[in-house]
Amino acid sequence: MTAIAELVAALAPGKVVTDPDVADSYARDRTFLEPGKPLAVVLAETRDDVVAVLRWATEHRVPVVPRGAGTGLAGGATAIEGCVVLALHKMTAIKELSPADEIAVVEPGVITADLDRAAREHGLMYAPDPSSYEISTIGGNLATNAGGLRCVKYGVTRDSALGLEVVLADGRVLNTGRRTVKGVTGYDLTGLFVGSEGTLGVITAATVRLRRAPSVYPATIAAEFGSPRDAAAAVAAIIAAGCQPSLLEMLDRNTLKAIDDWRNIGLEASTRAMLIAQSDAADAPAVSERMSELCTANGASFVAVSSSVQEAEELIGVRRMAYQAKERLGKCLVEDVCVPRSALPHMIEKIEAIAARHDVLIATVAHAGDGNLHPVFIFDHNLAEPPPSVWAAADEVFRETLAAGGTLTGEHGVGLLKQRWLSLEAGPTAKEIHHGIKQVFDPLGILNPGKAI
Amino acid sequence: MTAIAELVAALAPGKVVTDPDVADSYARDRTFLEPGKPLAVVLAETRDDVVAVLRWATEHRVPVVPRGAGTGLAGGATAIEGCVVLALHKMTAIKELSPADEIAVVEPGVITADLDRAAREHGLMYAPDPSSYEISTIGGNLATNAGGLRCVKYGVTRDSALGLEVVLADGRVLNTGRRTVKGVTGYDLTGLFVGSEGTLGVITAATVRLRRAPSVYPATIAAEFGSPRDAAAAVAAIIAAGCQPSLLEMLDRNTLKAIDDWRNIGLEASTRAMLIAQSDAADAPAVSERMSELCTANGASFVAVSSSVQEAEELIGVRRMAYQAKERLGKCLVEDVCVPRSALPHMIEKIEAIAARHDVLIATVAHAGDGNLHPVFIFDHNLAEPPPSVWAAADEVFRETLAAGGTLTGEHGVGLLKQRWLSLEAGPTAKEIHHGIKQVFDPLGILNPGKAI
Repeated sequence: MTAIAELVAALAPGKVVTDPDVADSYARDRTFLEPGKPLAVVLAETRDDVVAVLRWATEHRVPVVPRGAGTGLAGGATAIEGCVVLALHKMTAIKELSPADEIAVVEPGVITADLDRAAREHGLMYAPDPSSYEISTIGGNLATNAGGLRCVKYGVTRDSALGLEVVLADGRVLNTGRRTVKGVTGYDLTGLFVGSEGTLGVITAATVRLRRAPSVYPATIAAEFGSPRDAAAAVAAIIAAGCQPSLLEMLDRNTLKAIDDWRNIGLEASTRAMLIAQSDAADAPAVSERMSELCTANGASFVAVSSSVQEAEELIGVRRMAYQAKERLGKCLVEDVCVPRSALPHMIEKIEAIAARHDVLIATVAHAGDGNLHPVFIFDHNLAEPPPSVWAAADEVFRETLAAGGTLTGEHGVGLLKQRWLSLEAGPTAKEIHHGIKQVFDPLGILNPGKAI
Repeated sequence: MTAIAELVAALAPGKVVTDPDVADSYARDRTFLEPGKPLAVVLAETRDDVVAVLRWATEHRVPVVPRGAGTGLAGGATAIEGCVVLALHKMTAIKELSPADEIAVVEPGVITADLDRAAREHGLMYAPDPSSYEISTIGGNLATNAGGLRCVKYGVTRDSALGLEVVLADGRVLNTGRRTVKGVTGYDLTGLFVGSEGTLGVITAATVRLRRAPSVYPATIAAEFGSPRDAAAAVAAIIAAGCQPSLLEMLDRNTLKAIDDWRNIGLEASTRAMLIAQSDAADAPAVSERMSELCTANGASFVAVSSSVQEAEELIGVRRMAYQAKERLGKCLVEDVCVPRSALPHMIEKIEAIAARHDVLIATVAHAGDGNLHPVFIFDHNLAEPPPSVWAAADEVFRETLAAGGTLTGEHGVGLLKQRWLSLEAGPTAKEIHHGIKQVFDPLGILNPGKAI
């Protein structure tokens, strides 16, 4: 019996896909990266399926690439030549939702926004909301420690992860963490798995923290600026004033232009940056008024305050369509640098200068309240990968980020895409420690090899 | 040259203490545990001192016990026979405090409350506030992932730790984490060190997150109940109503009695539990009114609401003196179990029943909003260690906690004290993984051996 025949025999009919065309549709994430050819794709439905795959993979030394919805932006779920893609999107059960304990226990394939909606039925919310939250899965969010728009107030995915059920490379099941809001028994293995991009184990269930949903719809402001530096200064002023926005996003001219070309949002010629801010605090109207004043004081040419649900959702919708609008213009290399907030104006200027110097189209959105910038390098649809000018510009952005005390990736992960810059941020000691930890969990190196670390 | 002579020679005069009487004063934490005799105590003043000690210890295979202020309650800093105690309380520099980035970079010996006060000069705060925060150090708080009173709203120490400088067992220096509020480059080593109780490395600097301090003094309520179950029900109601208290503490009759005997707080004969709650939200007066109503609706015999700073500080002072009041009555075995919030009433009743069955005095305070209970088992001053009845009662409390979906320790750590129960919570796979990780950082096992894992 061949190895693949053994895998097919170990799982129920239909769970192992070997047709190359079908398999290829599970081989990519949202990057331009060309995947290797998977040996097979497993459509897991239960923890036992995952155990069976990993036992088989250990026996046959076959690399396994875990996969949620494939919405990642760093190549973490990109198939490796000869791997098995372990797809978890069919594990969609919300196994428990306890309003009294403000927790939920979910399978990895649950769509992020579905969990949020389920929580809202009980006056709660699941806070982490990556832009892709209508299509991304909790499992993928955990694997990358995804951020999102609300995380300026509520933290990233790790901040909502209390405990995990993980299948290790050899098929053993490990439970980490707890159901309680606090707990210090043992090392923080939950935190270690979150953001490890499928290199340490496969998450088959997660106990996540829910939070009380705000009782009213957030007040929203939108402000237009003639200069991105002014917009960045307004961000600093909003933070310094203690406004504690629940959302604070910035869009540059190129991003607004891409959206306007697609959906006609009535973009003014003089607008070079837009801020969108929300407050969901008890005194949201007062806070949004204060944020509005701070925008004006920092040179905004136009500020609108709204507490209408529809207007606000249209505005946030504009923000959420930013990436799709850019994909219409070309292939995208999406970066995800994060700097201390005070370095935001500096980074905005540096990115504009780098774009000009290399004659590259960069359209930037930022989770501005977190100092997390997404400069998107847009290149010709017909190219298989970014031209040298894009790589050179990206390289400069990374180096400027690190020089400003920042980090290569705020929320997307290292995946394959940032491998070449990793050693700029992580020195040899950190690298050795990372590989030592990897060895503890996955001594044969079958879990997503070549990614993340 | 003897090993100790080499250590003395490696450090500036006065930094190595070998006088047994002086050394003994650095050998204990706040538990009753009888320490081993240290070979020496090093009073480190710089990172280089720490590097020198660990290089020496690696060369001579001498165990090293890192120590902050010795306020721990689990034996994490208790000296081991023949060890070197590496005392870090002299490393007290706040190296940087950036209001714009809302971060501070501190040495491990900084007193927790001192950092908070330094932050408040800029309208910020350092949120984690263990009851001992006027005498505990940031380094000790990081090593144990300390909680505190405000963590019901602001999270535990790990939630405020962004990056660390750590000296590894062999003297190499590792930098983890970042200065940014978000970041996903590599595994979460910062989270791994936090709560590792000095078994993976010695923290010599920490980049911590500061938060915006509330603009007004919190509104405070105190409520007295004739039954601890009613008090626990009020806690559940306050959480369920979305009040988001910034402090929610519960004291049982035995605790109140111990405080009353010492400081005469006018305890009523009928009072069997007290809740203290604060809100620092923008609408704090309305929230405290709501919390007050919920206490009354759940059977409180008396509720007082106050926005006077003095009254509030007196009340919180009552809470903070609980442990000292108990130490007057005897030696204390302090436990730190944490259960899902919904199990709080159940645990309160179980603890009372266990105390009665074993004829043991248990006085309980709880960070009730977190489900974190501190049952303190009080025994005769003249006994060297707890009598069998206390151990038996503690054993039952742990088993009830785990049965209720809880964890052995919410914020104090495992140290030496909970070693005997550890395997009840962490199965063999988790144990193997923990020891594998330990091996990566400390292959010779010189860092705080026998603790935590």
